[in-house]
Amino acid sequence: MTSAEIRPEVGRGAASTSAEPVWWGWGSALAHQPLPASFSALLGQLGIPVRATRPVGPGEVRLPPMRLPAAARRALEAVVGEAHVRTGAEERIRHCRGRSTTDLLLLRSGDASAAPDAVVLPVDHDEVLAVLRVATRERVVVVPFGGGTSVVGGLVPSGLDGRPVIALDLRRLDRLGRIDRESGTAELDAGLRGPQVEELLAPHGLTLGHIPQSWEYATVGGFAATRSSGQASGGYGRFDDLVVALRVATPAGGWDLGRAPASAAGPDLRELVLGSEGTFGVITRVTVRVRPLPARRIYEGWSVPDFGTGLQLVRDLSARDLRPTICRLSDETETAGELPTDTVAGTEGGVAGGCRLITGFEGSGAAVAEHARQVAVVLRAGGSRPLGPDVGAAWEAGRFRAPYLRDALLDLGVFAETLETAGFWSTLPALYGGVRAALVDTLGEAGLAPVVMCHVSHLYATGASLYFTVVCGQGDDPIRSWQAAKAAAGEAIVAAGGTITHHHAVGTEHRPWLGDEIGSLGLDVLRAVKRTLDPVGILNPGVLIG
Amino acid sequence: MTSAEIRPEVGRGAASTSAEPVWWGWGSALAHQPLPASFSALLGQLGIPVRATRPVGPGEVRLPPMRLPAAARRALEAVVGEAHVRTGAEERIRHCRGRSTTDLLLLRSGDASAAPDAVVLPVDHDEVLAVLRVATRERVVVVPFGGGTSVVGGLVPSGLDGRPVIALDLRRLDRLGRIDRESGTAELDAGLRGPQVEELLAPHGLTLGHIPQSWEYATVGGFAATRSSGQASGGYGRFDDLVVALRVATPAGGWDLGRAPASAAGPDLRELVLGSEGTFGVITRVTVRVRPLPARRIYEGWSVPDFGTGLQLVRDLSARDLRPTICRLSDETETAGELPTDTVAGTEGGVAGGCRLITGFEGSGAAVAEHARQVAVVLRAGGSRPLGPDVGAAWEAGRFRAPYLRDALLDLGVFAETLETAGFWSTLPALYGGVRAALVDTLGEAGLAPVVMCHVSHLYATGASLYFTVVCGQGDDPIRSWQAAKAAAGEAIVAAGGTITHHHAVGTEHRPWLGDEIGSLGLDVLRAVKRTLDPVGILNPGVLIG
Repeated sequence: MTSAEIRPEVGRGAASTSAEPVWWGWGSALAHQPLPASFSALLGQLGIPVRATRPVGPGEVRLPPMRLPAAARRALEAVVGEAHVRTGAEERIRHCRGRSTTDLLLLRSGDASAAPDAVVLPVDHDEVLAVLRVATRERVVVVPFGGGTSVVGGLVPSGLDGRPVIALDLRRLDRLGRIDRESGTAELDAGLRGPQVEELLAPHGLTLGHIPQSWEYATVGGFAATRSSGQASGGYGRFDDLVVALRVATPAGGWDLGRAPASAAGPDLRELVLGSEGTFGVITRVTVRVRPLPARRIYEGWSVPDFGTGLQLVRDLSARDLRPTICRLSDETETAGELPTDTVAGTEGGVAGGCRLITGFEGSGAAVAEHARQVAVVLRAGGSRPLGPDVGAAWEAGRFRAPYLRDALLDLGVFAETLETAGFWSTLPALYGGVRAALVDTLGEAGLAPVVMCHVSHLYATGASLYFTVVCGQGDDPIRSWQAAKAAAGEAIVAAGGTITHHHAVGTEHRPWLGDEIGSLGLDVLRAVKRTLDPVGILNPGVLIG
Repeated sequence: MTSAEIRPEVGRGAASTSAEPVWWGWGSALAHQPLPASFSALLGQLGIPVRATRPVGPGEVRLPPMRLPAAARRALEAVVGEAHVRTGAEERIRHCRGRSTTDLLLLRSGDASAAPDAVVLPVDHDEVLAVLRVATRERVVVVPFGGGTSVVGGLVPSGLDGRPVIALDLRRLDRLGRIDRESGTAELDAGLRGPQVEELLAPHGLTLGHIPQSWEYATVGGFAATRSSGQASGGYGRFDDLVVALRVATPAGGWDLGRAPASAAGPDLRELVLGSEGTFGVITRVTVRVRPLPARRIYEGWSVPDFGTGLQLVRDLSARDLRPTICRLSDETETAGELPTDTVAGTEGGVAGGCRLITGFEGSGAAVAEHARQVAVVLRAGGSRPLGPDVGAAWEAGRFRAPYLRDALLDLGVFAETLETAGFWSTLPALYGGVRAALVDTLGEAGLAPVVMCHVSHLYATGASLYFTVVCGQGDDPIRSWQAAKAAAGEAIVAAGGTITHHHAVGTEHRPWLGDEIGSLGLDVLRAVKRTLDPVGILNPGVLIG
């Protein structure tokens, strides 16, 4: 069985393209591939039970009645045009939930109970403002919708009190504005997806360089609203580092922020919009730092002796200002899952017992080679062995593969999900151990025999991120089992002093721990800001803050 | 006449040390020096009228009656101890206003009408919290006081409605907390002055590297509250870049922020505290990034053909990721004022007609030399000529001199003041021209024959700062003349798209333009945050926001 054989697909709407994702999973059906043999073998070795499943057919999806009042609909149509207020089943299902495994399990079962009543597609900032005015007046809940790739429940509002919900799809905000070559900045509309950004910038010899795993579908507005971090954050910075100015449409009016690269004109309010997850306003345009397209790229694989040594080595690279553009250190379990021995046959020494480290360098020619050379000196001195460019190339070729792989696993009745955190260097070993134990213990107690893998993929001067992947059986109630495991992991993160999320955002799933992170005063401050910008509370209620 | 000859000094109180600044000027009397011959000669050449003046004697200072009610005083004494609630004339005068030229002109004339009623010196975070509870209950206004070096009216509250005012002097919060060598961080009490920080870190082989011109007196809490930027920002970052965690005492309770180097757990609320200028709470402790003490330092002087070319060159250095640790480009006028021809006699070609550029490099040995070499290649290719290390050393030796020089100028009846802004690279030429013209025209119309100098001293990928120094006669009403010039400069900054302040903060002086910077929604947001954290409005009313 290949995963392509069991794919139903909803018929295409007007806004669909060939790359439009399936409604029940990740990415387009065309890109889905069967599970790699190495992974299938691993499942067998680990005793994870396999049981073929498939999403329900489109006709079996349970969609609640459309509740948008006619008056509200007419008012919205007056703003964006009749063609851009959509209430058809397909549009509503396509805007139902995000792309967490819980989301997909519900969708695959035909549960579209969280679908919006309508999808509204404004064309620009002024139309977004006008939609928000209508929604405020008509008491319609608005869920800003970019790529729909949230994995933390960021598209599932709560506390609706019977109010109708519209998904505010920003795909028509897809323009490249002014490029300021002198300053190295470009204005990007919020609805631009990752590939669109690079396609628009490339003819100018420029790149944004922000490539998270969700890059194929995630949007500029979503990057900003969730504080996204790309795989090349070591070289290009997190998305919040790349933002120099923001335009926001709020129920209280339009808001422009950012007049200089740095300022002492009070608190930096851009940092209040970044990470606000559509609860304060709708980001409609972002001015970002851009860079020349890299003249040279070097991706390499290394085998480091063990994860603890690897953590020390990547810390040393950071401390010496040698952070690679891309740097991904896998723990022993992830290394075993990601790097079957046949991949490294013939390489120097293999990776038996070690951990995989991927390094990537991008930039101008000579500097890139020198950077890679200096990093190699540090890695060799720390007992690492080069696996060569093929391992780097293999990682690069598969950099967007994981969520497709998850679909293939779900087709086999296997559960797969991720969570992430970050902490200061001194906290990382305990953070790693605590979260891993919480996941292993909780899922193990549920009899699900979890495989818990981890990698470090974002380095900072004072610390780094940890990204966990869990693969296990589904048992009788995988959503409930995962909620228990996720809760245990959250408690472990708080106990070890880490942050509840490094780049996935808060959504609804991390809300229980936001108070631990920013204090009750922090929650009070966020609520006060929300009351100021969204007095009626139409924007994404229940997301980020209650 | 030397400036030392005409210095009265208030008798020393218990908290004074040999480095305690004079009450009417900058720094300790011991450090004051007569005006350099080159500067005196310049004043003569420029026709700026000289007229010896001196501050009034201590007995001539006009201090308003002390209005702190006995009950409030007793309650404060119960928190911090009787010895730490001070109402003597000297203490009140020493905590009156900051160190703008307007502040100094008023103080020198004996106007201490803005003095607080009492000075309160808590010893730690808990005492600060307790003081804020008392002040909230007794409706006493609290002005957080670090080094007292504000140049934007940040220590002059308004809208008092008859309420008494205490200066909350944080000098007793002077401890170095935990050093986390693994993570490269250190916990610093808010009351530590710049030199104290380096003295405490040096035995550990570490440095903060944050050296603004106010370094001798300014404090860690002040650096954070005003978004300070040090002279070595190119290498070490702005102070806000160095902050990883904050502890804040607010009237609504204590607040701890910062659990990881980066996070997606909602808006970054540290960025709301940074720049809040004591209006939301009192920063009591800051965890900062620290670095190894540099093994090598190279400071050099260059002559670049003209200011426009210099802007292009420093932009190129930024774009190529070659930003020096320190980089200061003076315009033609500042070069003439700062670099008398005798200083560069015998150097290659001199600086006639050119602009001075200072570059500084700090770090580990080989990397520093290579960095300096690469920068030299770019500078030479741009037509610059090296002036050698002596010019660099001379700049370094005089890096804290300017405010002492101002005192000497005030003694001669000459006005001197500074203002600063920042913008994206493409805006800088118009920003420079607009602000310069506004200052020259406004002061010229007042018949004050201004000399307006400028330098660039903080480089970013997308832009830079501009720092203006104005020297002119005082005329009949120098404060009023300066207010008009400052207002014209503010309008010019807004018109050219720059920020109203790059590192001096808003205080009271920049308030008229804060709405242009962050919008009326931004002001509403700041007020909402303030109401949440300081519901009775005791903290620094009238500073930052109205």
